[in-house]
Amino acid sequence: MKALVYLGPGKKALEERAMPDIAVPTDAIVKITKTTICGTDLHILKGDVPSCEPGRILGHEGVGVIHKVGPAVTAFKAGDHVLISCISACGKCLHCRKQMYSHCTTGGWILGNRIDGTQAEYVRIPYADNSLYPIPAGTDEEALVMLSDILPTGFECGVLNGKVQPGCSVAIVGAGPIGLAALLTAQFFSPAQIILIDLDGHRLEMAKRFGATAVINSAEPGIADKVMKLTGGRGVDTAIEAVGIPATFELCEQLIAPGGTIANIGVHGTQVALHLEKLWDRNITITTRLVDTVSTPMLLNTVIAGTINPKRLITHHFTLDKIHDAYATFGHAASQQALKVIIDA
Amino acid sequence: MKALVYLGPGKKALEERAMPDIAVPTDAIVKITKTTICGTDLHILKGDVPSCEPGRILGHEGVGVIHKVGPAVTAFKAGDHVLISCISACGKCLHCRKQMYSHCTTGGWILGNRIDGTQAEYVRIPYADNSLYPIPAGTDEEALVMLSDILPTGFECGVLNGKVQPGCSVAIVGAGPIGLAALLTAQFFSPAQIILIDLDGHRLEMAKRFGATAVINSAEPGIADKVMKLTGGRGVDTAIEAVGIPATFELCEQLIAPGGTIANIGVHGTQVALHLEKLWDRNITITTRLVDTVSTPMLLNTVIAGTINPKRLITHHFTLDKIHDAYATFGHAASQQALKVIIDA
Amino acid sequence: MKALVYLGPGKKALEERAMPDIAVPTDAIVKITKTTICGTDLHILKGDVPSCEPGRILGHEGVGVIHKVGPAVTAFKAGDHVLISCISACGKCLHCRKQMYSHCTTGGWILGNRIDGTQAEYVRIPYADNSLYPIPAGTDEEALVMLSDILPTGFECGVLNGKVQPGCSVAIVGAGPIGLAALLTAQFFSPAQIILIDLDGHRLEMAKRFGATAVINSAEPGIADKVMKLTGGRGVDTAIEAVGIPATFELCEQLIAPGGTIANIGVHGTQVALHLEKLWDRNITITTRLVDTVSTPMLLNTVIAGTINPKRLITHHFTLDKIHDAYATFGHAASQQALKVIIDA
Amino acid sequence: MKALVYLGPGKKALEERAMPDIAVPTDAIVKITKTTICGTDLHILKGDVPSCEPGRILGHEGVGVIHKVGPAVTAFKAGDHVLISCISACGKCLHCRKQMYSHCTTGGWILGNRIDGTQAEYVRIPYADNSLYPIPAGTDEEALVMLSDILPTGFECGVLNGKVQPGCSVAIVGAGPIGLAALLTAQFFSPAQIILIDLDGHRLEMAKRFGATAVINSAEPGIADKVMKLTGGRGVDTAIEAVGIPATFELCEQLIAPGGTIANIGVHGTQVALHLEKLWDRNITITTRLVDTVSTPMLLNTVIAGTINPKRLITHHFTLDKIHDAYATFGHAASQQALKVIIDA
Repeated sequence: MKALVYLGPGKKALEERAMPDIAVPTDAIVKITKTTICGTDLHILKGDVPSCEPGRILGHEGVGVIHKVGPAVTAFKAGDHVLISCISACGKCLHCRKQMYSHCTTGGWILGNRIDGTQAEYVRIPYADNSLYPIPAGTDEEALVMLSDILPTGFECGVLNGKVQPGCSVAIVGAGPIGLAALLTAQFFSPAQIILIDLDGHRLEMAKRFGATAVINSAEPGIADKVMKLTGGRGVDTAIEAVGIPATFELCEQLIAPGGTIANIGVHGTQVALHLEKLWDRNITITTRLVDTVSTPMLLNTVIAGTINPKRLITHHFTLDKIHDAYATFGHAASQQALKVIIDA
Repeated sequence: MKALVYLGPGKKALEERAMPDIAVPTDAIVKITKTTICGTDLHILKGDVPSCEPGRILGHEGVGVIHKVGPAVTAFKAGDHVLISCISACGKCLHCRKQMYSHCTTGGWILGNRIDGTQAEYVRIPYADNSLYPIPAGTDEEALVMLSDILPTGFECGVLNGKVQPGCSVAIVGAGPIGLAALLTAQFFSPAQIILIDLDGHRLEMAKRFGATAVINSAEPGIADKVMKLTGGRGVDTAIEAVGIPATFELCEQLIAPGGTIANIGVHGTQVALHLEKLWDRNITITTRLVDTVSTPMLLNTVIAGTINPKRLITHHFTLDKIHDAYATFGHAASQQALKVIIDA
Repeated sequence: MKALVYLGPGKKALEERAMPDIAVPTDAIVKITKTTICGTDLHILKGDVPSCEPGRILGHEGVGVIHKVGPAVTAFKAGDHVLISCISACGKCLHCRKQMYSHCTTGGWILGNRIDGTQAEYVRIPYADNSLYPIPAGTDEEALVMLSDILPTGFECGVLNGKVQPGCSVAIVGAGPIGLAALLTAQFFSPAQIILIDLDGHRLEMAKRFGATAVINSAEPGIADKVMKLTGGRGVDTAIEAVGIPATFELCEQLIAPGGTIANIGVHGTQVALHLEKLWDRNITITTRLVDTVSTPMLLNTVIAGTINPKRLITHHFTLDKIHDAYATFGHAASQQALKVIIDA
Repeated sequence: MKALVYLGPGKKALEERAMPDIAVPTDAIVKITKTTICGTDLHILKGDVPSCEPGRILGHEGVGVIHKVGPAVTAFKAGDHVLISCISACGKCLHCRKQMYSHCTTGGWILGNRIDGTQAEYVRIPYADNSLYPIPAGTDEEALVMLSDILPTGFECGVLNGKVQPGCSVAIVGAGPIGLAALLTAQFFSPAQIILIDLDGHRLEMAKRFGATAVINSAEPGIADKVMKLTGGRGVDTAIEAVGIPATFELCEQLIAPGGTIANIGVHGTQVALHLEKLWDRNITITTRLVDTVSTPMLLNTVIAGTINPKRLITHHFTLDKIHDAYATFGHAASQQALKVIIDA
């Protein structure tokens, strides 16, 4: 089968690889129909993710059809259409029992990282019963690719951790795919204000179309002042960090109202300065989270009910043959005006 | 009347001052019977609290007897025995309605800071109905002095924010009065482990007597390793910072288990390093809080029921005449083996 | 001034009454501009509310302008436009401090019940700082009349108590004004299904326009079967009772999924049968609540932000002179296709 | 092997039965060392539990040693000492993912009910990884038999559902084993008052020794008045129903304070009267629950830490040979002064 293989920092190739097979009784083999590329895949290619070794098939998102299942799999059979979660969950360790699947002691984010991933014609999915979701007949499967990672990430790490509530004010720092996923799912809770902050004018335009009540171009000075003006001097109830660098996290520290929550989504490579000399008495909460994908069944419900249309995040389409082009487009997202790219396998 | 007055950095004096009087209809005048000294009073004397100007009577803790009340006070009358909250709450602003009395727009921590305080024979209490608590006849009033500030601070900022639960593991960094208040009140929730960490051997001895399941002397190396060993390699579910310097906050970052909470109590003067490069995917929560004293009625219930004995925090007694001696003892708490000192007014 | 006065079961009159005046320092006098009629007013007229004695001016909803304030009122001054809460809250009793204003020991629902109400030219509002809300300039005040009672009641007693969440299923039994208020505010949380159940076809038509995903006419048999079919055999996560009779409450018992919540809004006059022989092992929750109006500031935010348009609940307009016509219309709501009626004072 | 078999209403026999074997890959076979009898076993013998058919081996509690495991079991191996949960959980259905194991679509309470149980020398445990708990070496295993059912039932259905909090007041109606289990575990949260109500003087004596702050003999009139007197006229914050008949549930309705919670544990055979005409505006919550055993790991922690000693619930010991005597003793618990009986297999 064809598969996109990581070959060390800066190197990848579309190679012919052996079909995966059932390794333990709880495995399933899925024939991929659609996959996509995540910002994390770019991190791997930069060499920033040591757990992902050369030779690994990349990708942790996608939808497909069950090819075969191990003897202990009871929820799926060959031919079933399934959504793949980026998180593999055993369903029985201490962390899984607390619904913190991200820290499953033998799973977590392993697809396209510690084991071969979804940017291929077939993939082996461990703990299939707990890591795949059935796709109801008639569902637009392309939309569901957004439910493998980006939508639950924006929702769980940003919106749920950020305690977005009706009538509240939200600032989202970063209007890339993940910030926009937080923007879309924040609207589940009907906040009164959602302020998007980004350097890129095009992304801010998208943000307005996606429901932002105000946008601020962070290329210009006075960001915090503008947020204070928009919120009557209070600051925001929820600040969502969706970039992953010190400047954007520290901006959140400036924007947050007393009693508010800073919900970090960004993948950070260095420490940030936490200004406890200003914040110790401000009654704030800061959260971090690797997505647990515990909200996937709920998000499926909202997509099926038409409450949310995740296809709005999809800007480009490619075939698996052209996956290098897909990476080139996604890797230059701003100049290409790209959000998420779909790859048909 | 006699009152301890702040006269600028490093200077204080026991002076004769005019009796306070009702200024607005919601005020009460309380004759102080017992007060105490807080670590914050020492901060003021160092000149670290600019909101407290020279000429201010110090103190924000104490019990007393109502001397007179303004015409809008309905819950108290002259002669009633009352507990004074360190936080004044109007009960009607946006923050008070969310029970975040610490950020009351016209109150908060103002006693002995922006207005004259309790280290005197009489004190004016604004918003008396919302800032005083009736003391039932027969209660040991000395114990209740611990409910003005230290016990609700340890409980709300440390234990409640830290989400201490039955069977969980807790580390408290700092075994001074505030850390020990957190230790006493953490036991309301029956955690399986409470590990106290401090430089002072005497304080660690007290911690053991107060219910710590393990103590670690932080003068010795390998603190984090010891905590990991005690928790089966997981780290603690709750880490309570009760010192207020970068080293102790960063220690909490090292001790915290995935999914855990770092609850900051310490008053910090500088920024700390938040290691998001390690913590971004650990599903942790960090909280800050100025005490709201929203738990005071509940704490009163537990003292009256005998569930907790806050007198264990009291080590020394003085009269108001000897308040300089009281400051000297409390200011050298470690060498004096002092926790809280009671001053009879 | 003119005022609608309750004169005993079945009797009311528009009388000339003396202007109210400040009685205690925390009072305000409000000149009513718009008021409305509540189902509870009809209950009073039937003689079902013994706390409301003959001679009482009716009404507990409305907007107006501050006429004068007592000396302890700090948040309002003459000329301010205000929203009146149906609940008077002292802000300082044990229940108010838990935000359970409905059970304020000296307030609660007293307007138009234990003290004179809002169906008049002027009204005295106790605890004005805690029981009135400022109306920002430029707001459509008529819409805000819905925030005195009906919208917070539907939201707090039905939606919040019912724990409506994104992607969940909701059944609302009763499509009168209160059921429709629950329908409108349930959408703050983006449930996947909201099923309205009522005997009246016209109301069900309105429900569809207001956002119901399905409607069931309860004049026809098989209600529970239809709900089961709509929910894949599970039942609903939230059942909201908005009628107040045994049959509708017991219907909720039949509709509820394991783990679900029955949130009662209805005012009940008799006991109902709780089928614990079927429900003891179903992990359900049942809640009751008199509205606390604790959500009023949040609801104001959502109206100002345009998230919700409560004017959709208003079907008729009258002047205070014609208030008997207003009662006649509201009293025959079904045949008059009436929801809420506005009375201009 | 020897096993106690249900033979239809009123009939049971200690029979020789074939050893159970692995049926599906997730099964384990456990050699029972200690088991016990539950009130539910008596219900079965009365013929009240139609899902339990004649021929079934009874029992759903116990500790033992792994005899063998199926190929998909990863957490256990032969020789491991284990605690058996009364609830079998697949860990992957919709309900298990919400930690509502009691409603596992292919598990739940099936042991000694729909499949053969633990009152035997060996038992087959489905979903072993999710339904067994490892016993640390050196633990008193007899104490842990109380963790199969009774302690998590009292804790989850009574204490957690009842939202017991520090300083609050609790009434427990019924001082049988389940009420006493609620009493023991309620103390995890340090309530100020725990009032036990029962007809049996001996059980009330035990309740006092187990930590009740007051006891009321319900054979005497004026129960509700006595509770009101003990709570300053407020009623209790939490009322736990631990009997299962209309009179005791309706007593809880009389005892509950505004804003309080009635947590039902009792197994009810008939409907009860819910007095909504009195309760509709009292802001109360009523909960029902079949135990999920989701708290078992936490309870294990507290037993190991010595926070709780469940052996206090054990009054009698028997061998499997004498299990009819054990039933006779447990079946006449009041006259035998019996709580839980241990059966050594």
